[in-house]
Amino acid sequence: MLLNAKRLKQIATEAGLDVLVATAPENVTYSSGYWALSQWVRRGPQTYVVLPVGDLSTSRIIASTSLIDLLADQDVWINNVQRFDFFKANRNGALTSDLDMDQARLYDLPAAPSAIDALKRSVTDLGLETARIGLDELGILPGTREALAEAFPGASFHDASDLFRQIRAIKTEEEIARLREVARITERSIAAALAVAHEGATEKDLARAFHTQTVQDDATPVLGCIGFGSRAAMPNVQPSDRALSRNEVIRFDVGGRYRHYRADIARNAVLGEPCRRTQTYHNALHTGVAEALAMIRPGVCAKDVFDSTVKAVRDTGIVDYERTHVGHGIGIDGYDLPYLSATSTDVIEEGMVLCVETPYYELGWCGLQVEDMVVVRADGIETLMTTDGALQVLS
Amino acid sequence: MLLNAKRLKQIATEAGLDVLVATAPENVTYSSGYWALSQWVRRGPQTYVVLPVGDLSTSRIIASTSLIDLLADQDVWINNVQRFDFFKANRNGALTSDLDMDQARLYDLPAAPSAIDALKRSVTDLGLETARIGLDELGILPGTREALAEAFPGASFHDASDLFRQIRAIKTEEEIARLREVARITERSIAAALAVAHEGATEKDLARAFHTQTVQDDATPVLGCIGFGSRAAMPNVQPSDRALSRNEVIRFDVGGRYRHYRADIARNAVLGEPCRRTQTYHNALHTGVAEALAMIRPGVCAKDVFDSTVKAVRDTGIVDYERTHVGHGIGIDGYDLPYLSATSTDVIEEGMVLCVETPYYELGWCGLQVEDMVVVRADGIETLMTTDGALQVLS
Repeated sequence: MLLNAKRLKQIATEAGLDVLVATAPENVTYSSGYWALSQWVRRGPQTYVVLPVGDLSTSRIIASTSLIDLLADQDVWINNVQRFDFFKANRNGALTSDLDMDQARLYDLPAAPSAIDALKRSVTDLGLETARIGLDELGILPGTREALAEAFPGASFHDASDLFRQIRAIKTEEEIARLREVARITERSIAAALAVAHEGATEKDLARAFHTQTVQDDATPVLGCIGFGSRAAMPNVQPSDRALSRNEVIRFDVGGRYRHYRADIARNAVLGEPCRRTQTYHNALHTGVAEALAMIRPGVCAKDVFDSTVKAVRDTGIVDYERTHVGHGIGIDGYDLPYLSATSTDVIEEGMVLCVETPYYELGWCGLQVEDMVVVRADGIETLMTTDGALQVLS
Repeated sequence: MLLNAKRLKQIATEAGLDVLVATAPENVTYSSGYWALSQWVRRGPQTYVVLPVGDLSTSRIIASTSLIDLLADQDVWINNVQRFDFFKANRNGALTSDLDMDQARLYDLPAAPSAIDALKRSVTDLGLETARIGLDELGILPGTREALAEAFPGASFHDASDLFRQIRAIKTEEEIARLREVARITERSIAAALAVAHEGATEKDLARAFHTQTVQDDATPVLGCIGFGSRAAMPNVQPSDRALSRNEVIRFDVGGRYRHYRADIARNAVLGEPCRRTQTYHNALHTGVAEALAMIRPGVCAKDVFDSTVKAVRDTGIVDYERTHVGHGIGIDGYDLPYLSATSTDVIEEGMVLCVETPYYELGWCGLQVEDMVVVRADGIETLMTTDGALQVLS
């Protein structure tokens, strides 16, 4: 299961809530396993998961009839479904396979007219009319909370997106397995892009090779910042027709999505011999990440990791190095907790998965960046990387 | 320009609004050309476009400093930028390229502390304190509207997502060019998938071939429903390890995103000879689409297209054919106006781009679906397809 059920109970209980309602796609899929296509590719379509804290076995998925087929074909641990809206699926004769019978059972459930009606019905069915309800505010349509408050004047409603972020911060082993796989896919994709990085190849040529490997490994392209030379100084550089020259830096800040889980990895290469400054600066950034990885373990303060990392970069080559953060959690969302910044109050815990990064962007020169994905274990980190972040020299 | 500026003025004026504020990613990119990465891949990051109806040349983009590099490297027609938040980009010596100098200019703009502060400042700067403000409600964080209403008690605030949908319904030629290209990419991707559709090939094998062609053509995978046999009866079927047998139906409901624009196309094939029922049913669905395409022209009512299409399918082979809709607009969003349903009040207009579709899903048997993309021209449709929707027989 993706959901860290124990942590959900703990966080929700500490917040004094009786029930959490997931509404943003990341939280819906995380808490149920259900990936409701339309919600992920557009704004507007609604899917919810109602999670009564006292008894998670009574959790309920609220889904559009047009998307319930996916419930029958995915690894979803919640069996209680409240569907809404109409969708025509034909039937003609007996069904034999489990998949077909499961779909038929779902289509035969009573339907509510709309998502909000389905949510109201679920509140009543689950006896939550006077509950303290944590409502993930990032996925609902405007007016949803107001409509609920009017229907249930005895209930109280509280924003819950931050609580879901806190719950998601500590990964389950199933999540870690997926993150390991997407990290490997991303490393293979970088290697595939570097294999075509010859003089005259364009950023788009590398991007095509990168994303082809990603889809060949059954992942979906998401982040594909690949830039050459001074274009690499754009933090979000999108691949263009710019051709690669000798001695130029290539910066990757990239990662796909595999079984809903994200990667975010940065690597650099130079076609030919890097100049002295590139070597020095890159080494400083690489040293900064190594410093962070050496000190990350349960109980360490995120802000201390930030301070030490920045200091290491400054001490080893970039004297004026400045950053807002040197890393963040990653999971079903690309930016999970913790946040490794100067003002962060987060504390590192076992089971967190982190992107540790030291980017440097200099307008008119280039951009350099090392970013590794690691899991926090009881005694330190377990890296999810099979490659080292050192500057790669291509011949 | 992607934006239909004339239509924006007309729709906003009819609604009695002085300014529109785009907030959802589709509306931000549509109205400005600016694609702000984080907003597209996560929930939470905010980007806005303020569009004063009386003088669109004073339009303003509100962007996070961490994403303004993309403004310098994209085809954005709005020059006025209000940035918010802090991001460190280094500078060391003179800049020579336009791209670098553009980035420097953007980083040198004064910054607001947050997106909502930047939006408030823009309202004041543009003299909109007592304006009638149309606020796209799909992209804002909860509380944004309330905070604006408190800051500007003389202004009035109105939901504007539906207005943006109405504006986007009539495409500019630039949009049509992109839609034509993504339709071709999708057709090529279907052909690439069918090229590997041999006995024993899995749904995932076809999906890999499909998405590889999509990324080779510089598009991004979005919709990839590819199913065999009874799995094809799942409307949203996601590719699995199910292997293809002889005489089985393959259903594609697919489409990538190219330069932000979506495709949505459906085709069917059979490995070997289709059974009689498959032939009859597919022919009826194909005939239904043909009927729709023959009658679509400016001035025709969407509900009449629906009625005639369903009737054509019933008359030619599926006597009990039932659907909620037989098509929808497509553009930067996968579901634009118009909506071809029994209760639609939409009227077909020149410049609309439509997906016309007749899906049939039968549990335990299979799913069949024909879906074409077409542009509405003065005298009828111009198809964006280079392939016909007839059932393909693979040897």
